[in-house]
Amino acid sequence: MGLIVQKYGGTSVGSPERIREVAKRVIRYRDKGHAVVVVVSAMSGETNKLVALINELNPCGSAREKDVVLSTGEQVTIGLLSLALEAQGCPARSYTGTQARLMTDNAFSKARISEIDGSRIQHDLDEGKVVVVAGFQGVDSEGNITTLGRGGSDTTAVALAVALNADECQIYTDVDGVYTTDPRMVPEASHIPKLALEEMLEMASQGSKVLQIRAVEFAHKYNMPIRVLSSFDEGDNGKSTLVTREEDIMEEVLVRGVAFNKDEAQLTITGVPDQPGVAYKILGPISDANIEIDMIVQNIGQDGTTDFTFTAHRNDYDEAMKILTETGEKLGAKNVTGDDKIAKVSIIGGGMRSHAGVATKMFHALANENINIHMISTSEIKVSVVVDEKYLELAVRSLHEAFDLAGV
Amino acid sequence: MGLIVQKYGGTSVGSPERIREVAKRVIRYRDKGHAVVVVVSAMSGETNKLVALINELNPCGSAREKDVVLSTGEQVTIGLLSLALEAQGCPARSYTGTQARLMTDNAFSKARISEIDGSRIQHDLDEGKVVVVAGFQGVDSEGNITTLGRGGSDTTAVALAVALNADECQIYTDVDGVYTTDPRMVPEASHIPKLALEEMLEMASQGSKVLQIRAVEFAHKYNMPIRVLSSFDEGDNGKSTLVTREEDIMEEVLVRGVAFNKDEAQLTITGVPDQPGVAYKILGPISDANIEIDMIVQNIGQDGTTDFTFTAHRNDYDEAMKILTETGEKLGAKNVTGDDKIAKVSIIGGGMRSHAGVATKMFHALANENINIHMISTSEIKVSVVVDEKYLELAVRSLHEAFDLAGV
Repeated sequence: MGLIVQKYGGTSVGSPERIREVAKRVIRYRDKGHAVVVVVSAMSGETNKLVALINELNPCGSAREKDVVLSTGEQVTIGLLSLALEAQGCPARSYTGTQARLMTDNAFSKARISEIDGSRIQHDLDEGKVVVVAGFQGVDSEGNITTLGRGGSDTTAVALAVALNADECQIYTDVDGVYTTDPRMVPEASHIPKLALEEMLEMASQGSKVLQIRAVEFAHKYNMPIRVLSSFDEGDNGKSTLVTREEDIMEEVLVRGVAFNKDEAQLTITGVPDQPGVAYKILGPISDANIEIDMIVQNIGQDGTTDFTFTAHRNDYDEAMKILTETGEKLGAKNVTGDDKIAKVSIIGGGMRSHAGVATKMFHALANENINIHMISTSEIKVSVVVDEKYLELAVRSLHEAFDLAGV
Repeated sequence: MGLIVQKYGGTSVGSPERIREVAKRVIRYRDKGHAVVVVVSAMSGETNKLVALINELNPCGSAREKDVVLSTGEQVTIGLLSLALEAQGCPARSYTGTQARLMTDNAFSKARISEIDGSRIQHDLDEGKVVVVAGFQGVDSEGNITTLGRGGSDTTAVALAVALNADECQIYTDVDGVYTTDPRMVPEASHIPKLALEEMLEMASQGSKVLQIRAVEFAHKYNMPIRVLSSFDEGDNGKSTLVTREEDIMEEVLVRGVAFNKDEAQLTITGVPDQPGVAYKILGPISDANIEIDMIVQNIGQDGTTDFTFTAHRNDYDEAMKILTETGEKLGAKNVTGDDKIAKVSIIGGGMRSHAGVATKMFHALANENINIHMISTSEIKVSVVVDEKYLELAVRSLHEAFDLAGV
């Protein structure tokens, strides 16, 4: 008995039938004595239709007007789900971002939540109503409609859970939780029933697409437990993954899983003067062009020079290469090279903090398969390597086996 | 040079191409030095799609939630039109009903406008922006989204024009104004360049579908001139009808036009006691069943009894007949009869107030064609008759000719 925030994505509310199924599930939780707040996305396909209309009229138009159009997708779903709940005898009330007083800054299309006034929602919950809130949207201090950008609905759900002091934030997706790696690549991948928010943060940013990284960051900051469940499970006893505070996880596992990113590219500049400010001179122009940089590695070179390598998305490779070549000429670099057929593989786990030798074991497993490592980057709870793209599957499988993840 | 409110219906904004055309027209007006506020409907077809989704999930659900869904149609259009205006170099800003502070009561699906705070809109106009407002919607005092019901966008436009003290409210439709009668029935029907609001009120309620009666009532109450124009005219010099205060119309015409209603039914109850309260006893149960009554005629009968006849929409005929038969039994009426194959024809004109003999001329014209009149009802500026449906076209044509309307 407590307060649960549930979030359903576009596929979960993709048709009237699916919306009815969501209503049934919400009512089952309510019948158990829980208060339920539901956050929904636009019906699958709807946002794309709206984007197509926008692009036909003015792809470069003001973000404010685009948000006015895009926010209608979720508004349709909240009304429909409330009607479906009513049809099944459950009192419900819908809230747009504006009505939920989900305050954001005015960075249209990628607004940040600043504050939520949950008092009106709490009032409806106290009256026994299910509250249905539009994900992905908020309102700025002047009453303008804003959207939160990609993954915004997950973030709405976590933020509401924090504001309402919920017991758990449930994210319904088309999978039943987080796995040790992508089961489509490694059929032996095993389901993870519980993992730490820090680990999920690395899993999310390392290419595991189950949860949006912004939502995990938010949950991490405010210690809000997230449960990932499948909206395709008939009952409520299916598998799930609880993402929670590290202290709440009894058994510490050495390596939690293997994550990977395809579609990466690496760029290297060698023989630049090893002096203060050189990193900024190299990476500044890349960032100015709105190219997102992932891994950055700097090696000590010879004769007072140094070598830089960084990775970016493959789509940005040509532009990044052009910029880096110009920078190289300015700095008198020795060479600028690149490779757009690489992939990143990471092992993640809170346990590696206190266990030496995890990285060594990883490199050994890859060496056994004759996989050459281009780059290495480490953090407290992960080790990432860049390899040729053609070795990606082999690398993931061999690491999954080396760390015995199939038997978790 | 002044402030113009323009309203475009669903067909006028039915596609990205049409929206671009609307933007062009708005900019032409702005280039002439006018400040322009645009009110738009949902793109044609969109509201029907939303209604279909609602009906699939819960046709009897709460009107509040239906309004949340339905109001998205107009919200999409305001964003798209603003983007189209921007694409053509014109600064624009969209307003939902909530943002426009278009306050209504909380009668969801048929809300009435109570107040408009135009200060924010005025501020944008002062800055040279075109303001684009969602028609058909408002917000109640608790922040709930409301819709105004059928014809709501016309009403939004007139109400905004009044609130902003506009010089003119232009309603763009698929016809270029009001005609002396329906040109599809009488090809000789002539265009009316100017008519009085009172006359338009009768034309609208008598079956001329150009303007919604609620909007005309609003304009009449606040003396706001309405201009009806076609959004399919390429330029701005096409025909239009200006609907304005009677005082502003120099030349008073005897009969302005011929309006008609098909799909009517008449019901008659005879031989009921002629005593106070009998009208209420007969019509009360009909109204309680939400059946709208149009004409009502009471004749003196014989021996202290009286006869009632009223008309209603043909779709309500069976139910109305059932109720009236029950009432007849209770009151000891002599007879209850009805006919669901009738039509109503009216002549309308401010001039008939001061000219005797208009009604006589009408009856004479109908008698010449051997058309039998079932019922007659008159007001200051109209005479309506009920005839057999099969004579409808003949009646309209002969009246149009008798009053010499083709030559107006």
